Amino acid sequence: MKKALFLILFLPVGVFGQDHTAMIKKIYDHQLSESPAYENLRALCKEIGPRLSGSPQAAAAVEYTRQLMLDYGFDTVYLQPVMVPKWVRGSTEIARITNSDKVGTRELRTVALGNSVGTGPAGILAEVVEVKSIEEVNALGKAVAGKIVFYNGEMDPTLVNTFQAYGSAVVQRAYGASEAGKFGAKAVIVRSMTNRRDDIPHTGSLVYKPLMPQIPALAISTNDADLLSDLLQDQKGLKMYVETHCEMQEDVLSYNVIGEIKGAEYPEEIIVVGGHLDSWDVGEGAHDDGGGCMMSIEVGRTFLALGIRPKHTIRIVMFMNEENGLRGGKEYARVAKEKGEKHIAGLESDSGAFGPMGFSSMGEETSRDKIKSWKPYFLPYFVWNFDKVGSGADISPLEDQGVFLMEMEPNPQKYFNYHHTEADVFEAVDKRELELGAGTMTAMTYLIDQEGLK
Amino acid sequence: MKKALFLILFLPVGVFGQDHTAMIKKIYDHQLSESPAYENLRALCKEIGPRLSGSPQAAAAVEYTRQLMLDYGFDTVYLQPVMVPKWVRGSTEIARITNSDKVGTRELRTVALGNSVGTGPAGILAEVVEVKSIEEVNALGKAVAGKIVFYNGEMDPTLVNTFQAYGSAVVQRAYGASEAGKFGAKAVIVRSMTNRRDDIPHTGSLVYKPLMPQIPALAISTNDADLLSDLLQDQKGLKMYVETHCEMQEDVLSYNVIGEIKGAEYPEEIIVVGGHLDSWDVGEGAHDDGGGCMMSIEVGRTFLALGIRPKHTIRIVMFMNEENGLRGGKEYARVAKEKGEKHIAGLESDSGAFGPMGFSSMGEETSRDKIKSWKPYFLPYFVWNFDKVGSGADISPLEDQGVFLMEMEPNPQKYFNYHHTEADVFEAVDKRELELGAGTMTAMTYLIDQEGLK
Repeated sequence: MKKALFLILFLPVGVFGQDHTAMIKKIYDHQLSESPAYENLRALCKEIGPRLSGSPQAAAAVEYTRQLMLDYGFDTVYLQPVMVPKWVRGSTEIARITNSDKVGTRELRTVALGNSVGTGPAGILAEVVEVKSIEEVNALGKAVAGKIVFYNGEMDPTLVNTFQAYGSAVVQRAYGASEAGKFGAKAVIVRSMTNRRDDIPHTGSLVYKPLMPQIPALAISTNDADLLSDLLQDQKGLKMYVETHCEMQEDVLSYNVIGEIKGAEYPEEIIVVGGHLDSWDVGEGAHDDGGGCMMSIEVGRTFLALGIRPKHTIRIVMFMNEENGLRGGKEYARVAKEKGEKHIAGLESDSGAFGPMGFSSMGEETSRDKIKSWKPYFLPYFVWNFDKVGSGADISPLEDQGVFLMEMEPNPQKYFNYHHTEADVFEAVDKRELELGAGTMTAMTYLIDQEGLK
Repeated sequence: MKKALFLILFLPVGVFGQDHTAMIKKIYDHQLSESPAYENLRALCKEIGPRLSGSPQAAAAVEYTRQLMLDYGFDTVYLQPVMVPKWVRGSTEIARITNSDKVGTRELRTVALGNSVGTGPAGILAEVVEVKSIEEVNALGKAVAGKIVFYNGEMDPTLVNTFQAYGSAVVQRAYGASEAGKFGAKAVIVRSMTNRRDDIPHTGSLVYKPLMPQIPALAISTNDADLLSDLLQDQKGLKMYVETHCEMQEDVLSYNVIGEIKGAEYPEEIIVVGGHLDSWDVGEGAHDDGGGCMMSIEVGRTFLALGIRPKHTIRIVMFMNEENGLRGGKEYARVAKEKGEKHIAGLESDSGAFGPMGFSSMGEETSRDKIKSWKPYFLPYFVWNFDKVGSGADISPLEDQGVFLMEMEPNPQKYFNYHHTEADVFEAVDKRELELGAGTMTAMTYLIDQEGLK
């Protein structure tokens, strides 16, 4: 034991200048043995639950995380007001095959897409036409008038980075309604964004393009999408009845929750670290993005618990309204600009609370190189991939202020098993993976604070 | 598109000799889009179930995997006879606190450890003495006589490689009964081997040391272990009643299942790839090691499906009896030696069907270096860690024949959430992670076959 200690004390500092190995081990050890992150996530998911912008639960989550940061002794904790959209799902949601030769009448499980208009009580009964992409709709043109367009494009299973597959397929969900509506379609049904074959419909936001007709949009599960596609192969004139009662109401006041630990040397220079507090109204927003929020709070708490006084100001932000508006992220950037604040880095966690495997980043190449030079610090914790270019959604509005932006990247294989569904619940998060995520976020924040990015 | 193709065709071959990038992508793409591995695992777990050595289910699994290999068109499929221990759990299992001042009588959930003797219908009622290690028992010596020894050593949560934490803690389970029995203890109760706090007891094998008294051994969950420890703090003379009806019966005949694809250039040189077909009698042996078996069969099936004719003979083995005897692995090595077979490599998957992250290996350093030089082929699939020294249990008896040995290493964070418990069921395995594992095993086998290890 004495011998080992001797070796550690005389470890060569090597390429890093100061050697941060011991402090980084302390950070991870602390997370893996004493972290409240998992219990805090449980409370957020189970005692508050889903937190759609403008909902009472979103307001409760604002207060809960504000209290957490106060309890942990952050130097300053405050709310940043932001007006957010209030979209309400309403009660009944129906997606029914009405005249199948093979299965007769069949109810499909469905959830309206976020931001969608509803059908109202009259519902919509129409023939279904299947497409695999927006391009196909544009090729069909007026042939979709009066119909329900069924977007059945699949995520490419061969893409190991599932977010890449999502990025290609999700345009159907985001813009499919407008693209079909402009040709007179009555409604759209979208295949859920997942690689799995299962029975769970995935919601998520759509964006109505300006000056185009707004038509209702619903998601169905991949199993139901496969069934519907099969039935359409065999039968011309297959019809569906859809009914939803969702609506976009007036904007309401909400908040970003902000907590700071003041920098000892450069208090005016800010490292912003965060996730988004809002979630969809199905499930509990555990991976998306309760986990990211709890990790971010852990960054601040761990600094305080281990007595690390940062050089720069560490600012922890629970962003509001990432899911259907990004208003919190936009307002945060607007205010930062207005105040002339100097951000040296932004770090987000919004890709789930799975085992961390790296960081994406974007900004000056020299800063990216510096981040990559820290890789040896992270390898003992199985965090190895520093190559991806990218950022988190909430911090992305800071890009035009020249802020170096990063997102923690967990292993992405299982994210779309849960994303935007009733399955995104606390039980889907593993305690050690969450803690490793919190340790990884903290270690990176610590290195940026200690070493800077220049 | 044409431009990209041009670039690919003229890719520099670089350090690798022949460039295998395209074939490796083909292997992974095939797994991620067309693999039957997940469905095969479902059938193994749900239609057959737990497969303890000597059980009817183990026999059914032998026949099931033999049929699979025949159906996939392996060149040769045969059974290798091996005598295995037959340990039977029996019905009632009781671990009861009988006289707590605080909770009165309390039933704890329990499973007898594999290979343990039973208490018989009379059971054992005795005072409980808590220890954290075998060293503590040796220090107590005769003071444990007539008592139930409660081994409550925890897995170290700060070890990122959970197998390392397991390795330190599991000696209590493996040897604790003999070490306490030699001082006259009546029975042992062991804290389950997991980092989690939950209510699930974990079984696993013990080894009775020769010429020592054999006393019954049971596992309790970590939550119950914490409770018991708390109660013992407050109360001298706390007693428990334990009752088990397990017993070791006569050895029975079973089999390793072997399937080969003959090598075109070096048919006498063998690459052996496998997992173990037996499992504990609780749960379904999904991660341990149904997943490893299905991945191994996929190696052979994928070679055939993609028309890869191997240079060396690829031999897929479903080893029997890893869990409580390693008889299959030992017999395989014995027969190989007897026949004078030449194995150029052994590759096992027995660390769960979680997302693959690397390979351990042991053998000549030049071969390890060669394996490591292939890392760039694997990075696109998030497989990055080639440093660990180690092998799989079933192939380890080949070590003294100088065979280069490897094990695929999945991310280990969650393995001990399931290991040896009722929770190790099909639903705990993710389809994509299983497929990536199968792709990784296949790609490594392909590279060893193509490039050799010299």
